[in-house]
Amino acid sequence: MNPSATARARAALAELPAEIATTDPDILAGYARDQSQFTPSETPAAMLAPRTTAEVATAMTALHRHGVPVVPRGAGSGLSGAANATADSVVLSLHRMDAILEVDPANRLAVVQPGVVTAALRERASGAGLAYPPDPGSVEFATIGGNVATNAGGMCCVKYGVTGDFVLGLEVVLADGRVVRTGRRTVKGVAGYDLTRLFVGSEGTLGVITEVTVRLVPAPRPAHTLVASFAALPDAGRAVTAVVEDGLTPSMMEILDRTTVRAVDAMSGMGLGDEVHALLLIQSDDPDAAEVLARVEHLCERHGAVDVAISADRAEGAMLLEARRLALPALERLGDWLLDDVSVPRSRIAELIAFVEEVAARSGLTIGVFGHAGDGNLHPTIVFDDADPAARAAARGAFDEITERALHLGGTITGEHGVGRLKSGWLAVEQGPVGMDLHASVKAALDPAGILNPCAVMPREAAGSR
Amino acid sequence: MNPSATARARAALAELPAEIATTDPDILAGYARDQSQFTPSETPAAMLAPRTTAEVATAMTALHRHGVPVVPRGAGSGLSGAANATADSVVLSLHRMDAILEVDPANRLAVVQPGVVTAALRERASGAGLAYPPDPGSVEFATIGGNVATNAGGMCCVKYGVTGDFVLGLEVVLADGRVVRTGRRTVKGVAGYDLTRLFVGSEGTLGVITEVTVRLVPAPRPAHTLVASFAALPDAGRAVTAVVEDGLTPSMMEILDRTTVRAVDAMSGMGLGDEVHALLLIQSDDPDAAEVLARVEHLCERHGAVDVAISADRAEGAMLLEARRLALPALERLGDWLLDDVSVPRSRIAELIAFVEEVAARSGLTIGVFGHAGDGNLHPTIVFDDADPAARAAARGAFDEITERALHLGGTITGEHGVGRLKSGWLAVEQGPVGMDLHASVKAALDPAGILNPCAVMPREAAGSR
Repeated sequence: MNPSATARARAALAELPAEIATTDPDILAGYARDQSQFTPSETPAAMLAPRTTAEVATAMTALHRHGVPVVPRGAGSGLSGAANATADSVVLSLHRMDAILEVDPANRLAVVQPGVVTAALRERASGAGLAYPPDPGSVEFATIGGNVATNAGGMCCVKYGVTGDFVLGLEVVLADGRVVRTGRRTVKGVAGYDLTRLFVGSEGTLGVITEVTVRLVPAPRPAHTLVASFAALPDAGRAVTAVVEDGLTPSMMEILDRTTVRAVDAMSGMGLGDEVHALLLIQSDDPDAAEVLARVEHLCERHGAVDVAISADRAEGAMLLEARRLALPALERLGDWLLDDVSVPRSRIAELIAFVEEVAARSGLTIGVFGHAGDGNLHPTIVFDDADPAARAAARGAFDEITERALHLGGTITGEHGVGRLKSGWLAVEQGPVGMDLHASVKAALDPAGILNPCAVMPREAAGSR
Repeated sequence: MNPSATARARAALAELPAEIATTDPDILAGYARDQSQFTPSETPAAMLAPRTTAEVATAMTALHRHGVPVVPRGAGSGLSGAANATADSVVLSLHRMDAILEVDPANRLAVVQPGVVTAALRERASGAGLAYPPDPGSVEFATIGGNVATNAGGMCCVKYGVTGDFVLGLEVVLADGRVVRTGRRTVKGVAGYDLTRLFVGSEGTLGVITEVTVRLVPAPRPAHTLVASFAALPDAGRAVTAVVEDGLTPSMMEILDRTTVRAVDAMSGMGLGDEVHALLLIQSDDPDAAEVLARVEHLCERHGAVDVAISADRAEGAMLLEARRLALPALERLGDWLLDDVSVPRSRIAELIAFVEEVAARSGLTIGVFGHAGDGNLHPTIVFDDADPAARAAARGAFDEITERALHLGGTITGEHGVGRLKSGWLAVEQGPVGMDLHASVKAALDPAGILNPCAVMPREAAGSR
C-alpha cells in the first residue's frame, strides 16, 4: 500500500463513526477474500460494518471524496473472487444489516436488508405459507445482498428461475453516497430503465445494495424424486433432451458424471458402482408429479437408463438425493480443487462432459462434473495438488480449456458464480470489444471515479477509469 | 424544421441506399405517431426501412455522424407516444426485418427479427409444441421488436410474466452504428452486466433492436374458465386478494368495473345487468385446473359473488370471456377515449377503482376500468369529447389524478404501456431526482449525442444531451 493510498484511507476513516470501522489486522485478515481459488487478494486497509443505509451513505460519501476503493461484501461465500480486497481498499461488509423488514402475503413479497442469510428468508417465507425459491449451494450462510450482487442460482432454477427473477426493487447507495430506490412493489412496472436488473449481478461494481424487495411464490407441493443411472454418458444427455422436448419442466434436474459418482462411492460406500457413467437426479413438485415422473422414467429407460428409482416420500427422496449432496465434499476429499461454472444449451451437456473427460485423460487430472442438467449449468471440478506448480498450471490450463469449450458450444463462461476476478479475462472473449466498451461506459456512468470494486468483473484498465 | 436540421437529414440520407429511404409526404404521414392520445407528434423528415442489421448499422452511422434524431418504430401500436416523430427526425421502421430465424425445441428458444408480428411467433412456437406466452392486447399486429422495446405485458403475466422475462439475448445497433450482441442462448448466464434487460423497455432511447432470442415454454394445457359477478366492488377486490393469499396462481385474472360492464351490455346486449358492480374473469391451465377453479369459486362466493359460472370447454370459455374482449371496444363507442395504464399492489385494486369512480363522479366524465387484477395492472379508460377543450382538460386532469393515486397506493405510473411522451413528466415523480440523474447518466453513456428517440422517456432537457 503506497503512502498516499494510506493517507487517503485514513482521512476517510477519520470522518466515520469509530464503531463501524476496524483496522485490527487479525480481523482484517478474515475480510481479505471470498471462497474462490486462483484469485489474487490482499488484506484491506480497513473494514466497515455499517448498521443503516444512512451509515452506508456517509461511508461512501467520505470514501468517494478521498478516492478510496471500496469492496462491498456479503458473507464472503462467493467462488469467483468478487469480494477479494486490495491493500488500498476498504471492505464494506453488510452483515450488520440483517433485518427482514416485511413479509406481505397479500402481495407475495418481502422486503429485506442485504445481510439477511438466504436460508433465513426462505424459512420466514415458508412460515407465511410462501416460498423464496432461489437455493444457491451456499444457501445456509450466503446473504441476500451477495445473492443479488452475483445473481445467484441453485437447483431450483430449471423451474423457478434465478435470484434476479425474484428481485422487484432495490435500495442502492451509489458510488458518491447518494441513495436511490429502483423498481417497484407491484408485479408489473415499466417506468423507465430497468435499473434494478442493472444492479443485479453487477458484483458490487455499480453500487452498494442496502435493501431488497423480493417476489415470493406460493409454497410448492412436496416434491417426488427420481434417480436414474446410465452406463453411457450420451444416453443421459439424450434423456435430458428428451425430458425437455417432451414438454416436462422438473423442479430439479441434476447430473453427476462418472468421476463424481466414484468419488461419492469412495466417500460414502453408497455402492452406486463403477459401471455408472452418469446419474440423473430429478424432482417434480407439479400437482401431477407422479405422472410427470412416470413419464420421465419412461424417457430415461427409452434412452438406456440401467436403473431408475422413484419415491413420493420426502425422507426417501432426500436419501435418493444424497449422492448430489455429497458431490462436492466427495471431490474435495481427493485433493485441492478448482470449481468451474459454465452454462451450455441443455442439448449440449453430454458433449461438454465428454470434453471434460478428454481433458482429464490428457492432463492426468481428476475432473468431476456435476450440476444443473435441466438448465445446462455445470460445475467441472478440477482436483490437483496445490503444492505442485506443474499441477497448478495444469489445473488452470484445464479450467481455461473447459471455459473455452463452453463458449464454443454456444454457452457462457459463467452460469451462476459470476465473473469476479477469476474470469475477468474471459469476459472480454464472451462480450467482444463493443460489449466491453458498453460495460466500460455503464461503469463510468455510475462510478466515474472507479472506486467500487475496481478489480472485479473488468480489470482496472478495461474499466478505463483508474 | 429549421434549415440546418433539413440539411443534416438530407446529407445523411444521401449516404444511404435509395431503396431503404422514403421522403414521400403521403407515406411519412403514416409514420408520424403511434396509437396514443394526448401526445405531440410531427411528420418526420424521412422514413428508413432497412432490410438487414448491416443496413441498420449503416443508417445509424450516417445519422449519428450528421446528428440527425432517430425514432425507431415497430408496428406503431404503442399507447404512450414512444414512436412519435419530430420534424427534424428520421423514423427507422423495422417492419422489413420480419423473419423467424430459428426455433429450437431442445433448448426451448427462438431467434427472431424485430419486425415479426407477435401472433406469428406465437403460432410458430405452437406448431413446435411450445408457447411464447406474452399476449399484449395488440398481439395480432404489434411486433416483437416493439414488445421488447416497451417490455409489453398482457393477460398471461399473472402466471407467465412479461416480455422481458422471455428475452434471453439481443442484437442491438448502438447510436453510433456499432453492433453488439447481449445475453445468451443458455437458460442461465451471469457474465457481466445485464445489458439485455437494460435495452428491454428502453423505448428506443438506447439502441435499435435488430434480433431477439426468446425463451419458449411447453404448450400450456387448455384453460378452464370462471366468471364471477359481484354487486359490490370491494367484494371483488377481497376475492382477488383471497385467491392470491390462498396460494393459487391463475393463468389469467381480469377485472371489469361497473362502467365497463354497462358499456359492454349497451354494445352487445349481453345482459350482464346494472346490478353488477364488478366482474372477475379467471382462467387456470394448471394440471388440476378443475380443483383450482372450484377453490376460486368457493372464495368468490365467500366474498359475496352474486353469480359464478365455470367451464372446462374451450368454446364455452371463450364465450365467458367475451365481456373482456369487448371492454375497450365498448368504451370506445361512447366517445373519444384516453387509456391509462397504472399498476398497484394487487391488494389495492379495489381502492384504485373506487377512487376512479369518485373522480368520474366529480368530473362528470365516464371512466371505465378494466385490466389485469391478478397483477394489479389496470387500464382506467376516460371517455370524453375531444372537440370540447374543457372536456379535454378534464380528461387530462382525471388521468393525472389517477396516475398520482396509483403512486400513492404504492404503485407505478405504468405497468405495461411505457412512459413514451405521455408520461415523461410523471417519470420524474416516480423516480425522484437521483433516479432521474441515473437515467440521464445511462442515456448519456449509451447515446452521448442524444440522437435516439430524444423526446421519449425523458424530455430532451432531462436527458441533458441535446
